Amino acid sequence: MKMDHEAHMKSALFEAKKAMEEGEVPVGCVIVDESGAIVGRGCNRREKARNALAHAELMAIDEACKKLSDWRLGGCTLYVTLEPCPMCAGAIINARIPKLYYGAKEEQSGSCGSVINLFMERFGHSPQIVGGILEPECRALMTEFFRKLREK
Amino acid sequence: MKMDHEAHMKSALFEAKKAMEEGEVPVGCVIVDESGAIVGRGCNRREKARNALAHAELMAIDEACKKLSDWRLGGCTLYVTLEPCPMCAGAIINARIPKLYYGAKEEQSGSCGSVINLFMERFGHSPQIVGGILEPECRALMTEFFRKLREK
Repeated sequence: MKMDHEAHMKSALFEAKKAMEEGEVPVGCVIVDESGAIVGRGCNRREKARNALAHAELMAIDEACKKLSDWRLGGCTLYVTLEPCPMCAGAIINARIPKLYYGAKEEQSGSCGSVINLFMERFGHSPQIVGGILEPECRALMTEFFRKLREK
Repeated sequence: MKMDHEAHMKSALFEAKKAMEEGEVPVGCVIVDESGAIVGRGCNRREKARNALAHAELMAIDEACKKLSDWRLGGCTLYVTLEPCPMCAGAIINARIPKLYYGAKEEQSGSCGSVINLFMERFGHSPQIVGGILEPECRALMTEFFRKLREK
């Protein structure tokens, strides 16, 4: 089945907007199986959950592992609005997710090309990466969040 | 207070042995606060939990964040029997844990010097690392696990 990457990124943006409404940095993620069905969703909840692990990707991977009852997500594709940090990029490797599509680059902690590219290291699993999917929308959400934060 | 690193690593080894008994790769972790009290524990449960995130360090960080009701674990020290993978090293950065003590090196995915050293990259937080704490005991547990696995 041909994946509609923009449609799936829109689902990730929908999750990011939930984070925004909660006052969290707006990052959203969905994981899609081979049929195109969403098997995991997550949005950043670090402040509300008071938990360093509460990133969008980890929440989506946790849900997908539970749903598929497997630590291997070999048939899945992950969509996230922002370039993953090292923790989340490492989790993508650990879950053997073969394809990652992200929206905007992240210069402070992005680990799929910005600060480092974890997928180029010899970890025995190297997902394909495509960045820039709906990049203007993903970036605009971040810009809006930080503008509002400064205004407060 | 002066930390007794070997005593804390023994607590991590105790967790690793729980994993071993469950047929999991024997990795254990404890997080200790400034007073020397254990605020988080975890052992590898990837196979039993069928979850790519069920590494010892993530479980311990999750417990410590919940216990201290904070995503920042700035006063804590993490002890783990095996060199952390990129996901767990990234989680240590995200939780702002300042000190990491590990037992044995991990050549396949170790991200504190073996494959890469995530803490040398510009992520804005660089924990101190000391490896080799009770290294013979930590390594022996791994060797025993893989020997038994081959015999099966």
